[in-house]
Amino acid sequence: MAVKTDTRPGTRERLLASAARLFHARGYHATGIASILKEARVHAGSLYHYFSDKEELLCGVLQHYRQILRPVLLEPVEAVEADPVERVFGLMAFYRRLLADSDFGSGCPIGNLALELGDSVPAARAEIEANFGAWAREVATWLGPARERFPAGTDLERLAEFVLTTMEGGLMLARARRSFEPFDHAVESLREHFRLLERAGGA
Amino acid sequence: MAVKTDTRPGTRERLLASAARLFHARGYHATGIASILKEARVHAGSLYHYFSDKEELLCGVLQHYRQILRPVLLEPVEAVEADPVERVFGLMAFYRRLLADSDFGSGCPIGNLALELGDSVPAARAEIEANFGAWAREVATWLGPARERFPAGTDLERLAEFVLTTMEGGLMLARARRSFEPFDHAVESLREHFRLLERAGGA
Repeated sequence: MAVKTDTRPGTRERLLASAARLFHARGYHATGIASILKEARVHAGSLYHYFSDKEELLCGVLQHYRQILRPVLLEPVEAVEADPVERVFGLMAFYRRLLADSDFGSGCPIGNLALELGDSVPAARAEIEANFGAWAREVATWLGPARERFPAGTDLERLAEFVLTTMEGGLMLARARRSFEPFDHAVESLREHFRLLERAGGA
Repeated sequence: MAVKTDTRPGTRERLLASAARLFHARGYHATGIASILKEARVHAGSLYHYFSDKEELLCGVLQHYRQILRPVLLEPVEAVEADPVERVFGLMAFYRRLLADSDFGSGCPIGNLALELGDSVPAARAEIEANFGAWAREVATWLGPARERFPAGTDLERLAEFVLTTMEGGLMLARARRSFEPFDHAVESLREHFRLLERAGGA
């Protein structure tokens, strides 16, 4: 074979990490295959060994995000925070750091891809849904041990979805205004919501 | 002058309406000047009579959105809904119709432009902030007469900002999933927030 392929361990992971970083920083459409290859220090032949095209690479990136959800987002919060409700706010702090690190340029990588792609890459839609679904289920699981602190019948999946909505809305407004303020206000309002739930639950 | 200009009444308004519609449906960058002229049935000379370039047209569109906030969004809700809190949900129903009318393609026109433009058109940033600010101030004004129903010291501007955050986050997730469900859940959670506030206020 004349095409150079690099199938050593780590090549696929390097491609995914570079694609993830560039899609997040610049968007999917604005990222050329060439810049992914350059950043990952991989030849085109190796890319096409693992992924048939850019859309398949995108789906790989979205699967990668789902795989790193536990080790990168959830476990670091679990390691420092035992209280179920405080864990939610530990997760919000993670997204605040994303805002800071990107100088308000990029918020949630999944949310950004969701908005940019719309319906243009159907294969990616299922992966985006799977990411949002896994995120909300994990947060609902976190909240499980606090169930008794909330009013009877509180739907924890719904509450976790509200956390996701607040996070995405807060990031969006913070990016638009290039200010932490809308995000911080969203977090404070979410805290108020949890306080009110606990107050109504304890009554 | 060889350039055809059309300065009759309504020309500027037609340009703004066409630009607003196309920016909302396709995005700012994807909309060419030619398609705006075609839809508005206006010659280029007339466009440049009113706007020096596409960025100035964009700022005109954003000012236009602020001008129609009262007559198009707020007054129709005020006409059918007297209760301050119910007005908030009347406004949410307006955005749900935007989702339906665009087949989940576009949510809040200001939010979409904010995310697409980022920091790339600084002149538009101030106009986007002015739109979000006016929206939240109007909602806070709506809530004023309900102040006594909430706990003492409730910050109505902050509460209005939380309505905006929930609306934008809910639209975003609904567009991503091409489903009303995330938006409807966001609205129900916001209702729960208002119920909890009124419960804590009445206690």
